[in-house]
Amino acid sequence: MIIVMEAGAHKENVDRVIAEVESLGYRAHPLFGTDRTVIACLGDERGKERIQTLDSLPEVERVVPILRPFKLSSREVRPETTIVDVKGVKIGGKALVVMAGPCAVESREQILEVAHAVKEAGAHILRGGAFKPRTSPYSFQGLAEQGLKFLAEASQATGLPVVTELVDAHQLDMVQDYVDMIQIGARNSQNFFLLSSLGRAVKPVLLKRGMMSTIEEYLMAAEYVVTNGNGNVVLCERGIRTFETYTRNTLDLNAVAAMKKLSHLPVTVDPSHGTGRWDLVPPMCYASVAAGADGLLVEVHTHPDKAVSDGPQSLKPEKFQAMVKTLRAFAEAAGRTL
Amino acid sequence: MIIVMEAGAHKENVDRVIAEVESLGYRAHPLFGTDRTVIACLGDERGKERIQTLDSLPEVERVVPILRPFKLSSREVRPETTIVDVKGVKIGGKALVVMAGPCAVESREQILEVAHAVKEAGAHILRGGAFKPRTSPYSFQGLAEQGLKFLAEASQATGLPVVTELVDAHQLDMVQDYVDMIQIGARNSQNFFLLSSLGRAVKPVLLKRGMMSTIEEYLMAAEYVVTNGNGNVVLCERGIRTFETYTRNTLDLNAVAAMKKLSHLPVTVDPSHGTGRWDLVPPMCYASVAAGADGLLVEVHTHPDKAVSDGPQSLKPEKFQAMVKTLRAFAEAAGRTL
Amino acid sequence: MIIVMEAGAHKENVDRVIAEVESLGYRAHPLFGTDRTVIACLGDERGKERIQTLDSLPEVERVVPILRPFKLSSREVRPETTIVDVKGVKIGGKALVVMAGPCAVESREQILEVAHAVKEAGAHILRGGAFKPRTSPYSFQGLAEQGLKFLAEASQATGLPVVTELVDAHQLDMVQDYVDMIQIGARNSQNFFLLSSLGRAVKPVLLKRGMMSTIEEYLMAAEYVVTNGNGNVVLCERGIRTFETYTRNTLDLNAVAAMKKLSHLPVTVDPSHGTGRWDLVPPMCYASVAAGADGLLVEVHTHPDKAVSDGPQSLKPEKFQAMVKTLRAFAEAAGRTL
Amino acid sequence: MIIVMEAGAHKENVDRVIAEVESLGYRAHPLFGTDRTVIACLGDERGKERIQTLDSLPEVERVVPILRPFKLSSREVRPETTIVDVKGVKIGGKALVVMAGPCAVESREQILEVAHAVKEAGAHILRGGAFKPRTSPYSFQGLAEQGLKFLAEASQATGLPVVTELVDAHQLDMVQDYVDMIQIGARNSQNFFLLSSLGRAVKPVLLKRGMMSTIEEYLMAAEYVVTNGNGNVVLCERGIRTFETYTRNTLDLNAVAAMKKLSHLPVTVDPSHGTGRWDLVPPMCYASVAAGADGLLVEVHTHPDKAVSDGPQSLKPEKFQAMVKTLRAFAEAAGRTL
Repeated sequence: MIIVMEAGAHKENVDRVIAEVESLGYRAHPLFGTDRTVIACLGDERGKERIQTLDSLPEVERVVPILRPFKLSSREVRPETTIVDVKGVKIGGKALVVMAGPCAVESREQILEVAHAVKEAGAHILRGGAFKPRTSPYSFQGLAEQGLKFLAEASQATGLPVVTELVDAHQLDMVQDYVDMIQIGARNSQNFFLLSSLGRAVKPVLLKRGMMSTIEEYLMAAEYVVTNGNGNVVLCERGIRTFETYTRNTLDLNAVAAMKKLSHLPVTVDPSHGTGRWDLVPPMCYASVAAGADGLLVEVHTHPDKAVSDGPQSLKPEKFQAMVKTLRAFAEAAGRTL
Repeated sequence: MIIVMEAGAHKENVDRVIAEVESLGYRAHPLFGTDRTVIACLGDERGKERIQTLDSLPEVERVVPILRPFKLSSREVRPETTIVDVKGVKIGGKALVVMAGPCAVESREQILEVAHAVKEAGAHILRGGAFKPRTSPYSFQGLAEQGLKFLAEASQATGLPVVTELVDAHQLDMVQDYVDMIQIGARNSQNFFLLSSLGRAVKPVLLKRGMMSTIEEYLMAAEYVVTNGNGNVVLCERGIRTFETYTRNTLDLNAVAAMKKLSHLPVTVDPSHGTGRWDLVPPMCYASVAAGADGLLVEVHTHPDKAVSDGPQSLKPEKFQAMVKTLRAFAEAAGRTL
Repeated sequence: MIIVMEAGAHKENVDRVIAEVESLGYRAHPLFGTDRTVIACLGDERGKERIQTLDSLPEVERVVPILRPFKLSSREVRPETTIVDVKGVKIGGKALVVMAGPCAVESREQILEVAHAVKEAGAHILRGGAFKPRTSPYSFQGLAEQGLKFLAEASQATGLPVVTELVDAHQLDMVQDYVDMIQIGARNSQNFFLLSSLGRAVKPVLLKRGMMSTIEEYLMAAEYVVTNGNGNVVLCERGIRTFETYTRNTLDLNAVAAMKKLSHLPVTVDPSHGTGRWDLVPPMCYASVAAGADGLLVEVHTHPDKAVSDGPQSLKPEKFQAMVKTLRAFAEAAGRTL
Repeated sequence: MIIVMEAGAHKENVDRVIAEVESLGYRAHPLFGTDRTVIACLGDERGKERIQTLDSLPEVERVVPILRPFKLSSREVRPETTIVDVKGVKIGGKALVVMAGPCAVESREQILEVAHAVKEAGAHILRGGAFKPRTSPYSFQGLAEQGLKFLAEASQATGLPVVTELVDAHQLDMVQDYVDMIQIGARNSQNFFLLSSLGRAVKPVLLKRGMMSTIEEYLMAAEYVVTNGNGNVVLCERGIRTFETYTRNTLDLNAVAAMKKLSHLPVTVDPSHGTGRWDLVPPMCYASVAAGADGLLVEVHTHPDKAVSDGPQSLKPEKFQAMVKTLRAFAEAAGRTL
């Protein structure tokens, strides 16, 4: 931490800050500049936020943190990329992983039909929501446990592992009985109670970025899971909220390249939520892989105009298949296989 | 809903949209303009999102909703402001309500000391967190049930009702045994599972705006609580996330004036989180009341430099007292009492 | 400046940074922490951005500036608020200043009618645009010099000083011949060529905040005018761009309180652009004054439904008059006169 | 346009809106729904913003535009992509175009050195700023005409066409005497006075997206140039401003795919400003091409640690060369040549 005093700060206030810093177990190192006195605090500042509160002391202008606050998810502590195994499908290695399926499980027929279609088109993991967090209480909220059963059946019929969203920590055991990976949605990305509970999950976690989470906050959310005991976390950029209205969100591919550098966790991209428009999904799939993504999460629906949610951003199976085909060339250019 | 077709859309595609609209129970009314064909859909569109998915039909450019999606929290269905009674303290009437206290309950001594101080300074309700959602897993996470007990004791000692945050639906009964109002924090403002559970709460709810929620989404979050059976919801603007970095958040007072117009629910403001800087809290308290707020939520700590969280945005009791004193003149200018 | 090295940076790279820092005229002060080496650079860093570029040296993680970059507009160099005199109307003193008028000068009759109306309602300065920067090239672009003539006539007829927008540095002399204060619009707030030209203006400047400018960038824009020789700058918060869509912009009253603290320049607020909705203008006028504003800029139009621009955010004269009347009580609460 | 009346609007107010709509030359088509009366206005609404102001009429809730406001830059009026010829280099065809060079021209030696380096590495056009819009008035502001002379010399020495930024409409003729393409920077993207002046430019225009411009506003900025007579406009996505702070801006590649669909103008990307970090530039170059970009604008400097501006985001020539080499495979995957 660096503590910046106000211009013309009095000696007794500088001394008081130094005393407080040292009482917290740091070494204080004052630097007397032309315009300001600055106090450098030496010691591992992570997890010790008491120093931050010193900016309410008299004549302190601000406190500037120096270290990034995440530790276990950082590449500094683990240089090689973590490979997460989802029932045999490995995310984070040379092979790209494509996860696809409908936004919501709507019926047994629907999920079986889509599962077969995405498998044939080249997907490696099936996605589908049984518990749906919806902006409106009047919207379809998901089939709940019945949806999980349909997902499990679709998994068995196709051999594809399945990933589905968890919204309540108390349902973790029930959900992980049916599926192979637990998804945490963007709206729960700072639901720290839910994140902490995943430490005891036996299944890997697909953690979506919150639509208002900075990269640093997002990696801190991953840290909640890892530090509670589950290191099998897959990151997923899904677009952030900005002033732009033509697209549903702004897909932040800078973050993909940045997180590949900052963290050892595998990074995937969801261009369906990231754009909100099916016609922009294929180019953003290619761009994601070019930016360094380890995998994709794509919404596919056999009848998007009849979908109970997110139809406008779902690809039909034939367009999905064409996308995967074109994707191969980009995967190769990126030194990956598909 | 208004469905806008692409320029030069073919008749068969227009006809298909019309057929789909009518199969969903609406009357379709096509309008053939110079550049575009537009199809107006008549019928109550709230809760019927199937029409929205029609924009995946061929040659549909976009679907424009017309009605605001919230209903029970809207002033259209209830013109007079709802008055929420928190153990005798009425929020939403002529009298302004000031809620104050520390960010987190840290110890029995601390909460008792602050409780007496804010009572003396003129506060009507005591706030304090026992479960703390923190960005970092390495930060203080709250005293949990022990904190609730201290809060209850502080309430009894001062006569102030207390409000505290709930983070897990399964703890609702335990929490409402100890406190008088349940707070939902900004990070859970789209945790729809938690929101729905509040329908069965017997205590009123203080619902904070998410830092990424539009006014409309925020009122939809309130709708989750109200439609599940609990109409005693108090709104609380606490700043949104923007590109500005000098302040922790951007306090959106436009939203206060807008929500007073759109909704019958009482509206309060939290300038502590809305600014993140104690020296900006008093002017923003005055501005909130001038904008039409029914109450304030202010962080007060007797030793902000030793606070385990949010010290920089906490007022000391004497500054809080001075603020309340100055506030009276603004309350009067706004036609309120304090 | 503080230069943070990467974890495990090699000694030769630390030495290289130190050498570069000293070659730029600073004293380098290395601090060897547990996880990082940090190099503090002592010397006045303002205007010396070469150090910033050192983060392209090997193993440098980032460079953290310590000082705020503005100087002449800072309260540190001038503790008392500057009072800007606009043909006898003083902005920045105890008396609040209300500037009002139409978005655009549309005709001689219109501007005369509005000028008399706002004067009668209590305005102190008349506003009106002769050059209109419009998002669409197909929109009304203003009456140009003819509009300035009408403004001058309205000024003479009512005795109100006038303020109007300048969009081209080469028209400065022509514009300041007709009007009493030069406005720089939000879209030109980082048009540094135009800002620099105002140094030689003999009239005071009303500088609007850019919709994408941080408080710090905004004060740097003011610094362009002041450092070029014109210290008569009035700041004007007019809303920033955020994800919210119900209002046209998000009025940032945090910034008003913050700028009153950071700068000695007077601060005004434009709630018409800040909300984009006439019905939110009065509460935001009251809130602005409560937050500490020295004045207001309000759009008033006698026939808003026939306005060529910004009708939806314009008050009719009778509503403006009612607002000014109510404002008096808030002014008094704030220790101001009106 | 669609005009939405408030719930329970009175017949006389509905009739008044209809009369106003028709007096503006539109056909009004009222639709009486369950909750609302909606009035559809038929006629070409572009450039006719008077209807927008009708939302200040009594009991009008809001006015919803239907058509996109841009016309000449729209693919609807010109389905094939425009190819812009910059002294023989064609932007918008099958071949990708790489523009590279330093942020600012600093000296004759510097620009010649960089020009030779980028040419050898495979660039097609040389970039470099002679007039630098800087946030701080204390920063280097460019070499002005002397810089243009150095650019012209570097162009002659290498055979590369050059692009440079224009900041003042009155310098257009001087600037286009020296260079082959005129750049308009992000901070001037809504400087409509400057944009209009480009209509009479004989050289093509490289128009950067404003950091707070929506896609629609950006295409309206292009419309200013095209409608004033210069159809040779190249778009350039360079990142938008968001809450994220790890990167300087958020590169919006959604916008690249969207603009390729909405407009016939060629689209390029500037990942140097779009990320602000040289180590993220190569992956974002690949991602841009995968998203459909027609070209790239990359900052290259032989000594980034000594650059007078934007050193941290500049590639060294050898890294630039490696990037171009890798780019070829992505270009091929995208069906382009390089």
